[in-house]
Amino acid sequence: MAEIGRMSINQATTREQHSLAEAIAAYAAHGVTGISIWRDKLAECGLDRAVSLIGEHGLRVSGLCRAGQFPAADAAERQARIDDNLLAVEQAVALGADCLVIVAGGLPEGSRDLPGARSMIRDALGAVLPRARAAGVPLAIEPLHPMYAADRCAINTLSQALDLCDELGEGIGVAVDAYHVWWDPDLATQIARARGRILAFHVCDWLVPTTDLLLDRGMMGDGVIDLPAMRAAVEAAGYAGLIEVEIFSAANWWRRPGDEVIRTCRERFQQAV
Amino acid sequence: MAEIGRMSINQATTREQHSLAEAIAAYAAHGVTGISIWRDKLAECGLDRAVSLIGEHGLRVSGLCRAGQFPAADAAERQARIDDNLLAVEQAVALGADCLVIVAGGLPEGSRDLPGARSMIRDALGAVLPRARAAGVPLAIEPLHPMYAADRCAINTLSQALDLCDELGEGIGVAVDAYHVWWDPDLATQIARARGRILAFHVCDWLVPTTDLLLDRGMMGDGVIDLPAMRAAVEAAGYAGLIEVEIFSAANWWRRPGDEVIRTCRERFQQAV
Repeated sequence: MAEIGRMSINQATTREQHSLAEAIAAYAAHGVTGISIWRDKLAECGLDRAVSLIGEHGLRVSGLCRAGQFPAADAAERQARIDDNLLAVEQAVALGADCLVIVAGGLPEGSRDLPGARSMIRDALGAVLPRARAAGVPLAIEPLHPMYAADRCAINTLSQALDLCDELGEGIGVAVDAYHVWWDPDLATQIARARGRILAFHVCDWLVPTTDLLLDRGMMGDGVIDLPAMRAAVEAAGYAGLIEVEIFSAANWWRRPGDEVIRTCRERFQQAV
Repeated sequence: MAEIGRMSINQATTREQHSLAEAIAAYAAHGVTGISIWRDKLAECGLDRAVSLIGEHGLRVSGLCRAGQFPAADAAERQARIDDNLLAVEQAVALGADCLVIVAGGLPEGSRDLPGARSMIRDALGAVLPRARAAGVPLAIEPLHPMYAADRCAINTLSQALDLCDELGEGIGVAVDAYHVWWDPDLATQIARARGRILAFHVCDWLVPTTDLLLDRGMMGDGVIDLPAMRAAVEAAGYAGLIEVEIFSAANWWRRPGDEVIRTCRERFQQAV
């Protein structure tokens, strides 16, 4: 089972319990190696203070969540989103993040043109990538589950994300999130294809039944994903970075004490990942 | 827009309003060309009576829903499901159904072995197919949206379904349901590949937001699927059969009078498909 020293916790896992400062302190107190930071929480904390706290507690930043959200109805708004991504690159540099996570965005308001949205994503990534390369911040395209294609992310399979990486060249790879890709009949092939481009590996579990499309993710071991098999595939493809626990759970884990959640993450990481 | 004479309604669209006998009478009264029948409703009605009513009202049966549900934890249960599929083949013959819709089934209870479930599906289809061929009943594998991979259907893309068809040979094809496949970045390629093997085309819409994984499908035109583009692709691949409206909508359409639902289906079929 997974080595506990490789565990990072995405702060969304305790987003209702902790500010960023509190999450940093709590994760460090439990001996967690890394944290993945959300930009809304970062904005509340302030970048300089966050950088200090991270250094003080000796945490590694496995990722900054999230940039992307590229498709928009008009050119001015699309440019505003590119600008926001460029800002995110600078934040990732300051935090020493292993990667900047890209959740690409869905359909523009009122649109039914999914191929069009996908073109906007490709073009916008092309506009952000030179700055990211120059800054040494890898962009991690995170394919999101197809149930989010309309409203969150029109990149929905590893195959599609890797096609984009092929087209865009150096400095861009993928974040493999078990929740989003576990169902994919082409998963083993695409993980192998991703060799050298896996920038992050996220774990949680798929519950049966799942009662909410967004906020009912499970703790590792409580669902149906074969996480050890997926970890083996990701490692066979050369990934040796941190493994990030990311659980959105409005009705369960977000309602429990933060310390209980972190303890459970540690246990399950070693039992079920 | 779509010719109204090509419309079939899947009886699940008015499942809370109508028994099978009532659905047959109501659809016929509204001049609907076809109906797709569910086996639970068929059992309540009785096969002989259903056959009589269909003939009496001059409806075409665009499909029988559903067979499949193959994976199971032990061999006896797997055989029981194959036997049930063989019974469904006979029912489809009696009804003169255009195809028998296969919703393949998900993980066996307690299992995390998705590749194993997929092997069970392939083996079971191989066991059912000779009887279906002999009876002249095409089996239509319906890939279900990836959000159903665990509990309903481990066949989740057209590509995967067509790979199965390639392996199994004559007498088996696919049901293209817009709700399940609209998000697929490979959709256009796979629809073209499906030429000669598209046995059914189902329409409804993907609502934003979607509030329930199973029972919050939208009426055509109320969501984000580009249905005319998908219909054009399906027709360019040679499909000239009925187009079936299938809407599971516990909070909306299932609560309205059946006549209103059928009228709306007719309007939207001509405006938004």
